Amino acid sequence: MNETPKGPGGAAILVPVTRVQKPTLLRSENAESMAKRQRQISVSEFFSKNRHLLGFDNPRKALLTAIKEAVDNSLDACEESGILPDIEVSIRDRGNDRFRITVVDNGPGIVKAQVPNIFGKLLYGSKFHRLKMSRGQQGIGISAAGMYGLITTGRPVEIVSRTAATRPALFFELRIDTKKNHPEIMREMEVVWDQKHGTQVSIELEAKYHRGKQSVDEYLRQTAIANPHVSVVYRMPDGEVILYERSTQELPPDTAEIKPHPQGVELGILQGMLKEARGRNLAGFLQEEFSRVSKRVAEEICERAELSPRAYTSRVTREQVEKLLDGIAKTKIMNPPTNCVAPIGEEQLIYGLASVVPAEFYASATRPPAVYRGNPFIIEAALAYGGEIQGADSPARLLRFANRVPLLYQQGAGCCFGSTISVNWRNYGLQQPRGGLPLGPMTIVVHMASVWVPFTSESKEAIASYPEIEEQMTRALQECGRKLKLFLSRKKKDKEFQRKRDYIETYIPHIGIGLRDLIGLSDSERQGVVTCLTDLLERKS
Amino acid sequence: MNETPKGPGGAAILVPVTRVQKPTLLRSENAESMAKRQRQISVSEFFSKNRHLLGFDNPRKALLTAIKEAVDNSLDACEESGILPDIEVSIRDRGNDRFRITVVDNGPGIVKAQVPNIFGKLLYGSKFHRLKMSRGQQGIGISAAGMYGLITTGRPVEIVSRTAATRPALFFELRIDTKKNHPEIMREMEVVWDQKHGTQVSIELEAKYHRGKQSVDEYLRQTAIANPHVSVVYRMPDGEVILYERSTQELPPDTAEIKPHPQGVELGILQGMLKEARGRNLAGFLQEEFSRVSKRVAEEICERAELSPRAYTSRVTREQVEKLLDGIAKTKIMNPPTNCVAPIGEEQLIYGLASVVPAEFYASATRPPAVYRGNPFIIEAALAYGGEIQGADSPARLLRFANRVPLLYQQGAGCCFGSTISVNWRNYGLQQPRGGLPLGPMTIVVHMASVWVPFTSESKEAIASYPEIEEQMTRALQECGRKLKLFLSRKKKDKEFQRKRDYIETYIPHIGIGLRDLIGLSDSERQGVVTCLTDLLERKS
Repeated sequence: MNETPKGPGGAAILVPVTRVQKPTLLRSENAESMAKRQRQISVSEFFSKNRHLLGFDNPRKALLTAIKEAVDNSLDACEESGILPDIEVSIRDRGNDRFRITVVDNGPGIVKAQVPNIFGKLLYGSKFHRLKMSRGQQGIGISAAGMYGLITTGRPVEIVSRTAATRPALFFELRIDTKKNHPEIMREMEVVWDQKHGTQVSIELEAKYHRGKQSVDEYLRQTAIANPHVSVVYRMPDGEVILYERSTQELPPDTAEIKPHPQGVELGILQGMLKEARGRNLAGFLQEEFSRVSKRVAEEICERAELSPRAYTSRVTREQVEKLLDGIAKTKIMNPPTNCVAPIGEEQLIYGLASVVPAEFYASATRPPAVYRGNPFIIEAALAYGGEIQGADSPARLLRFANRVPLLYQQGAGCCFGSTISVNWRNYGLQQPRGGLPLGPMTIVVHMASVWVPFTSESKEAIASYPEIEEQMTRALQECGRKLKLFLSRKKKDKEFQRKRDYIETYIPHIGIGLRDLIGLSDSERQGVVTCLTDLLERKS
Repeated sequence: MNETPKGPGGAAILVPVTRVQKPTLLRSENAESMAKRQRQISVSEFFSKNRHLLGFDNPRKALLTAIKEAVDNSLDACEESGILPDIEVSIRDRGNDRFRITVVDNGPGIVKAQVPNIFGKLLYGSKFHRLKMSRGQQGIGISAAGMYGLITTGRPVEIVSRTAATRPALFFELRIDTKKNHPEIMREMEVVWDQKHGTQVSIELEAKYHRGKQSVDEYLRQTAIANPHVSVVYRMPDGEVILYERSTQELPPDTAEIKPHPQGVELGILQGMLKEARGRNLAGFLQEEFSRVSKRVAEEICERAELSPRAYTSRVTREQVEKLLDGIAKTKIMNPPTNCVAPIGEEQLIYGLASVVPAEFYASATRPPAVYRGNPFIIEAALAYGGEIQGADSPARLLRFANRVPLLYQQGAGCCFGSTISVNWRNYGLQQPRGGLPLGPMTIVVHMASVWVPFTSESKEAIASYPEIEEQMTRALQECGRKLKLFLSRKKKDKEFQRKRDYIETYIPHIGIGLRDLIGLSDSERQGVVTCLTDLLERKS
């Protein structure tokens, strides 16, 4: 390079001498040589290399994520079998940036044959293929935590599980074979265990322990807000123990599993369902596979699709599936049933919040069920105002929950934050900078309950922004805001009243004394005048 | 609820009557009944339900993502076999929010047996298990695009591929069986095709076509910046055709595949490698499996780990693996080789940028190779300043690239944005709001080349913030900034000079006339004085 290169228009460009990069290899690749390198990638290899996608970005977050996955599973299992959850979480410092976490529950336990798959195989579980509200939904979490532990410390996962007092407790030592995404059982034996039923999982992992923001403490504290029926004992590495006691003996209402709603189904999915539904006719298929499709509705769909209700499902062509979708779109079908989603409830939410965040005023709102992409959901919001929460000039604290699980990372992403800042809090007597959270001594809670929460990542840190969800969140927050406005204006009125009272108390006796001196009232007459004036003024204010 | 509930401290709480949610089901679940529902989830079922993780959030983005995946594959294949890429992208409007995209390349083609897996199976490919710089790395992209097409339109993917002029061109119609993550071949036949070798993929999908920001146009334009050796013909739905011609006939330098560096390896991974390395001794294993480990280095590692270099790899215990890692940490080992990453190059980057962004001034900087988590990488930056780019008060445009692929979504996430705003652009003569991009008529380019780019999501939209990466980005941008400063101050000086010249031109003739009138110079004497003064002043400035 001897000449200075010129840019368009002849302007001189400053280009220093480029470090010469000589090709060091012959490019001998062709279709055959490339084909030899093609191979399958196991899902565990994929997530092992991309573990940040699952929340194992760094040692701090890894500790929280591992505990969260175990606790979420415990709570789901307890609730599904109608058991009030008693959870014990402990973290032991093993030195050298390693910690051993142990989570014990009093749940139904896990049958022997399923233990290896549940803890040693990614994408395995009972919650993915159904539409039912639960904390877990992917079948990745706890196995990924074990895999992270294995990669960073070489230690297998240890599990103890017992399904009944009459059965032995089983101990397993497992490691995932990452290449095959398959559990390898290292040890398996019966052990003596003091729990009648339940599961204990223990993972050693590279981690960093801290308290405060985005810590295990914070996660458990927020879990207590959204799960007032849960009792948690938390043993910290330094020996300190925190007990989060349940504030209600009532389990959350049980929720039903539902079938998909026809108006959320996509062409390819419908095609696949038809293919699998051997030997049935179209109307029968529609009734059996979808919610809210009665015989009458099924016939109406077929009529509008110009298809015979008695057509064989296996013979429906792609073009006919398109017509069928058209028919579904044109038919008025009831919204999906909503007994599949259970809110925390306005009252419980306030009790939960009050047990953790002391404040002067609490409000909550549970919205009626709504639907996004065929999935029913319910949004709730709550707020705690006043007291010693924080300074009046700091932004409100936002706590986000999905199916009762606190979300601690990526606050700015997703629709909880978006809808909170979109509310005009100035209407309710608060200050609010543009595009920011309202200011004041306030904690805001937003909860989404759904049969399928649309998370923005596998690590389940934020809820994707569907317009239907955002609208419900905004409305729930506005309801809380209106209640807050009432409180704030009553508070202002009370203050006004107090000021008036202070006047009365200060001046009226002097009026009595003045009158006595002027027109010579007796002491009892003076007292009478004072009482009368006080009564009058107090009645008026 | 007849009583108003009280919060802590007895404050009244506003709680409206809660909608009563009665449990509608008996909770009959136990370990056995739960076990029956446990099952495996195929990776394609998982990504079909979570398709937003792959960039198929909405119809607009789906169109871009599908084309991007196909083009990235085409470019990788061409470059690996030393072919200058000629790509044709076309989008046809099929009505009803459906589009058919077709991408044709002149690459090496794909052998018959591999076509179904490459296009009809998620997590299948040649790029995941190696450490080599390429656009694709996951083995998900193109199959996911086909799956999205299938779900939304029911249409299979169509592929034509030919590996040599002497071989027939093969046509395939494929669909992924989502339940099994397995390709289903619908049709397969020999066809007449005018390409001597190459691959053509065609997908019909639900999409939304637009131009401008985050569109296919934008993606192809930016691809041309980072890939000046590529020629693209783009046929838009309205019939318009854009041609991006190559501005260089030189392929990027070929890069080597490397072995992992010992200092990036984790305990569990090392354990797994040792287990697979049957029948070798420790020193031999270290030399063969890692880069930069000579016989001497291997022996030093073993010595520091207090292990015998002749120990059988299969007999190394977990405790010994820990020691081995300690030994690796204590041994001075050369940085990984860097012939595995090829930058675009300072000169090429400027030519690429200039061919698309006309400006007054261009600068670029390529950093020396660096290493994060054992992976070598190179950062480059470039900028174009002035001209008609945009107003002086708008923020600079930031273009981000990873292994020559433009990243169009999530600009605010990841470390390209982070490092750009962390540079103090005021030092280089620009305005910059706090925590924002610098203002001015400027386009900034940041490129990361690496054997493994750490993306923040499967959709590969942003680069994760590793401190080592951010540092290199900041430095590259500062280098460009310093060059810009030179240009801006030279520009200022030029302006000053011009002003002076203008003075000279305006006043010196008058001095000549004044002297003539005062001391009676002849016209030629006057001319002589003017010339002399002009010369003098011009020499001085």
